[in-house]
Amino acid sequence: MGSTDMNSSSALNVAVVGGGLVGSLEAILLAKRGFNVELYEAREDIRTLEHVSGRSINLALSVRGRAALQLVGLEEQIVHDGIPMNARLIHSLSGKLSSQPYGKEGQFILSVDRRLLNETLLTEAEKYPNIQLHFSHKLLQANLDKGTLVFKKEDGSEMTVQPDLIIGCDGAYSAIRKQMIRLGRMSYSQEYIPHGYMELCIPPKEGKFATRINYLHIWPRDEFMMIALPNMDASFTCTLFMPFAQFDQIENEGETAGLDFFRKYFPDAIPLIGEKEIKETFLKNRGLPMVSIKCSHYNYKDRVLIMGDAAHAMVPFYGQGMNCGFEDCVVLEELLEKYNNDFAKVLPAFSEHRAPDAQAMCDLAMYNYVEMRSLVNSRWFLLKKKVDKFLNWLMPKKYIPLYTMVTFSRIRYHSVIQQWKRQDKFVEKALFYLMCVPAASIGVFMLSYFKPSTFSWLRK
Amino acid sequence: MGSTDMNSSSALNVAVVGGGLVGSLEAILLAKRGFNVELYEAREDIRTLEHVSGRSINLALSVRGRAALQLVGLEEQIVHDGIPMNARLIHSLSGKLSSQPYGKEGQFILSVDRRLLNETLLTEAEKYPNIQLHFSHKLLQANLDKGTLVFKKEDGSEMTVQPDLIIGCDGAYSAIRKQMIRLGRMSYSQEYIPHGYMELCIPPKEGKFATRINYLHIWPRDEFMMIALPNMDASFTCTLFMPFAQFDQIENEGETAGLDFFRKYFPDAIPLIGEKEIKETFLKNRGLPMVSIKCSHYNYKDRVLIMGDAAHAMVPFYGQGMNCGFEDCVVLEELLEKYNNDFAKVLPAFSEHRAPDAQAMCDLAMYNYVEMRSLVNSRWFLLKKKVDKFLNWLMPKKYIPLYTMVTFSRIRYHSVIQQWKRQDKFVEKALFYLMCVPAASIGVFMLSYFKPSTFSWLRK
Repeated sequence: MGSTDMNSSSALNVAVVGGGLVGSLEAILLAKRGFNVELYEAREDIRTLEHVSGRSINLALSVRGRAALQLVGLEEQIVHDGIPMNARLIHSLSGKLSSQPYGKEGQFILSVDRRLLNETLLTEAEKYPNIQLHFSHKLLQANLDKGTLVFKKEDGSEMTVQPDLIIGCDGAYSAIRKQMIRLGRMSYSQEYIPHGYMELCIPPKEGKFATRINYLHIWPRDEFMMIALPNMDASFTCTLFMPFAQFDQIENEGETAGLDFFRKYFPDAIPLIGEKEIKETFLKNRGLPMVSIKCSHYNYKDRVLIMGDAAHAMVPFYGQGMNCGFEDCVVLEELLEKYNNDFAKVLPAFSEHRAPDAQAMCDLAMYNYVEMRSLVNSRWFLLKKKVDKFLNWLMPKKYIPLYTMVTFSRIRYHSVIQQWKRQDKFVEKALFYLMCVPAASIGVFMLSYFKPSTFSWLRK
Repeated sequence: MGSTDMNSSSALNVAVVGGGLVGSLEAILLAKRGFNVELYEAREDIRTLEHVSGRSINLALSVRGRAALQLVGLEEQIVHDGIPMNARLIHSLSGKLSSQPYGKEGQFILSVDRRLLNETLLTEAEKYPNIQLHFSHKLLQANLDKGTLVFKKEDGSEMTVQPDLIIGCDGAYSAIRKQMIRLGRMSYSQEYIPHGYMELCIPPKEGKFATRINYLHIWPRDEFMMIALPNMDASFTCTLFMPFAQFDQIENEGETAGLDFFRKYFPDAIPLIGEKEIKETFLKNRGLPMVSIKCSHYNYKDRVLIMGDAAHAMVPFYGQGMNCGFEDCVVLEELLEKYNNDFAKVLPAFSEHRAPDAQAMCDLAMYNYVEMRSLVNSRWFLLKKKVDKFLNWLMPKKYIPLYTMVTFSRIRYHSVIQQWKRQDKFVEKALFYLMCVPAASIGVFMLSYFKPSTFSWLRK
């Protein structure tokens, strides 16, 4: 795929700041194009760290993320290492379970382990002679005009580099982005939501999954919500979403308040998680914040680019954070190909193409923040989902449910919103008429029954 | 007004960071309440600097700003030092002038000199024994949890203070706000608009104002706009607003491009400003950026508060930046009084009360960014303004034009938006019906003229 000679001594140097999911994937793609890639990661090599107590933040891999993994030949392996989830499984307060498929027969999202995925990408990156991985390199300074980066190494010494291109994949609290905000006329927003999150674990039961496996479990409770995703080790990772005020209240109410809260709102989850684990988790941990970050553009001149969470962190309610970040890599790859690696053209084009899409995805994730907590409970919403499905069956190309467009297509996110709004209006109208027609018929029937004279004109 | 003994040795210490308009006014108000106030300003004392070439950024003082100046007994003096502007004076491309009054007879906004106002406030502050002014004190570090500030003094030495309360009045690029963003879960947005601004000067003509004085002159040209405000020295300060792309184009086109641009769009301003001044200004200066800044809250615990542009910078198209900042001081004064100087109650209450209002004002300023450039040119807009005026005459208490609510009242900004939306809907409807009735009458008349039979039922 690379149009540049991989062994060319005049190959350009690219520094990727951040060796997380997007950073390590992007490093591979750049190496495939023949660039000399230096990847700097502040933490130690996660592959050398001991495993942390069977718990991990789960990710839901879908079409956009898979498209990027395909480019580096890792799709099959990662899919093999994940657990398909075909549907949401809604846990009602009474313990009743009901499932809502994510898409059509055979469509699923994949529960993948963040750490395993990251490790796989790093190991793949190491296979390229033109990628150097530098762990325990903490970014101290970035001068984007000069294009210099200063890192602090593990031994405390400092190191300055001046690559031809800097790619900031340093996450939601990106230091590269901070410098860009300082220099350019960059519009920027960060929005913290009033909810925090806390993780709990459903351990395996006699070595097997303690509850149904191929689902994303949801306990929607309007103001609160809990979800659970299956892990390869037969455990589930639960994430409780709740307003910070509620976290504080539970903390103030004392030792058993967390368990009491579960008894009231998630009784069927108690035997799965265990009373002890619930109690202890509330005593040990506090709610963690979630932030949505939008930028007007992602490049600084032809020297610097931010990608992934550094460019567009989003609240986790659509499971698109990683997928969107991975799709960044696909878009950049396409633009490098189109403009023959000319950064002066590629970087502004990336901003122009990608910013409206990533901003749209941030908005959709915020929308799902409401939908997941409450709408999945509402009858009107469920009715609309059914109409959605029916219309999609009727017009499979013209009418595509929102979730399908986001998760199972590569339709640009900003187009997704446009099409969704058109469709939504149509459905609302259709439902209205569908409900009006029988209502009107009943009315006409009753009137004609009691006051036949009114309808004499019908018999004319 | 102060409820605390001014000479009490146990008086609390307040550090005000920033000695601009809001900082110096707030220092006075806090001193009046008996606090020990230390004001730190990064620049030199502006009163000791030489006057800069007759030019100055003008401000339009109105009711909200005056309310604050009244609290410190300076309203009369400042009004005396300003120039009333009773109306907009619209300069059409052909040079035709038309005026649009700002309010009712006798209502005006005041063109005041930023520097003079700032100097007056500093001189007033100096009269209080419990205010210490520290110029050339640059903030190096702020630890908001400990409540410590480190300043660099003129001689290069450093100084650390730990006041009971920190008030950040350090402007749109506030260092105090940056620390707050880092610490708290603070939602924040900064939006740069595609327009930049550039100042030009209309010098006095034979010692007198070169054009009509008691007006805010506007040259609306859709994509561009120029305004001019009168100064006390008989000059006018012009501000040209234009997309950065246009500034760049003029810069690239060469020496006379600026003047050519004026010939095309602002021909009647050329004799006022002078060809030489226009040419030189374009060669010397570049477009300067404008930013709109919103925060979810303004306090950090009971220790830190940001006010003015630090809390809510806005684009300058409603002339409310200073007025909104000064009104912050009035609101804080009211809350200190209400909660008897208890910071733990006052600071969160200030955030809760003021954030929705200042955010609303930022939105209104952004709205006027469009209105000033183009709407003042549109007939529909002018018609609506007339209907506005008529309805206000009819129902003076129930129907108040938007500009009047913002500029000539102290109705809370967020209520202003609510009321405006209600009113606007009403006017649109009223205009629609007003135009439908004659249209329908004409239609009926014409039909009955050509096809009298159609209306035979009328004669039944």
